[in-house]
Amino acid sequence: MNFERLKKQINFILEIDKLKKISRRTLLTDESRTENDAEHSWHLAVMALLLSEYCDEEIDVSRVVKMVLIHDIVEIDAGDTFCYDYKAGEDKEEREQKAADRLFGLLPDDQSVEFRQLWEEFEERITPESRFAAALDRLQPLLHNYMTQGGTWRMYDITMDMVMKRAQPIEEISADLWDYTKKILEQSVEKGYLSQKKR
Amino acid sequence: MNFERLKKQINFILEIDKLKKISRRTLLTDESRTENDAEHSWHLAVMALLLSEYCDEEIDVSRVVKMVLIHDIVEIDAGDTFCYDYKAGEDKEEREQKAADRLFGLLPDDQSVEFRQLWEEFEERITPESRFAAALDRLQPLLHNYMTQGGTWRMYDITMDMVMKRAQPIEEISADLWDYTKKILEQSVEKGYLSQKKR
Repeated sequence: MNFERLKKQINFILEIDKLKKISRRTLLTDESRTENDAEHSWHLAVMALLLSEYCDEEIDVSRVVKMVLIHDIVEIDAGDTFCYDYKAGEDKEEREQKAADRLFGLLPDDQSVEFRQLWEEFEERITPESRFAAALDRLQPLLHNYMTQGGTWRMYDITMDMVMKRAQPIEEISADLWDYTKKILEQSVEKGYLSQKKR
Repeated sequence: MNFERLKKQINFILEIDKLKKISRRTLLTDESRTENDAEHSWHLAVMALLLSEYCDEEIDVSRVVKMVLIHDIVEIDAGDTFCYDYKAGEDKEEREQKAADRLFGLLPDDQSVEFRQLWEEFEERITPESRFAAALDRLQPLLHNYMTQGGTWRMYDITMDMVMKRAQPIEEISADLWDYTKKILEQSVEKGYLSQKKR
């Protein structure tokens, strides 16, 4: 057997343990702490299994699951960029490309290419699978912010127009999830979790 | 659209956020803290994507991924039972069946049945997919214990014979991963991470 190949795979598996230490801004629903990228990726994968029926286009769910499982791995090197931090967003792509080179480069060539392509597909948001993955990635923190009385919205003065813009990928791939999202956002404004006035 | 169905799904998705608070005994590779069930499930899912080529039987990898994503959800109610705590293991099945009733019962009927069956398949360890999932579930903490100079083995006086017994599912489904596992365990004994004497 080819132990060199397996060693590369195990090396990558051990390296990505670091994703458990990359904090996001989103609070857990019990508000005890922020969630990390590994937990977030797991959560999205289960959501993909449960919510694919609401996707308006035909998708291969197992590809969505793969995509969300690996979509944040580059943040081990590049860090989590807060989606409303427009300044930090400027060099995000450069940082993440470099991270992808190093991290996916740890894998044997065939798997390195496969993971890199999956991640780039996710980033480009052109295929139905990547667009649905992006919708889930926007819906999950939105649900957490609703459950935590505004969570990061209140903490960072995020307003309705900013959240609506951020949630666009949901509208673009799922009429049903978008209906639901709008209801949650309306209720968030009513309850005072989210401000309607522009910054 | 049927909001009742979506509400049940979202309710389940929010409920399983609690898996991020269920601690395992395994240390992260940087030894900073123990990992939780959500992170662990994510880690196994990525391992399934990368290591399926070593499975000695034909498997549907996407089913393995599904299984590992949901295999620990019952621990939200039943708690994590340390695999070497043989006393706590006695009523584990009863606690987990009750947890499965409540947790999977939150889902719409079709998905409730699907997730329950997947979880039971994982527990029974008869199909190739569930046997490979079990092997990954044994391999991951073993790698972490090796990387943390013995980690939980040293903390709880776990001996080579106990680890070998626990690792059996690896031998039963993958000759290659078993070869690798034996090497890791031999090196662990050599380095003093794991004791060979029986308790």
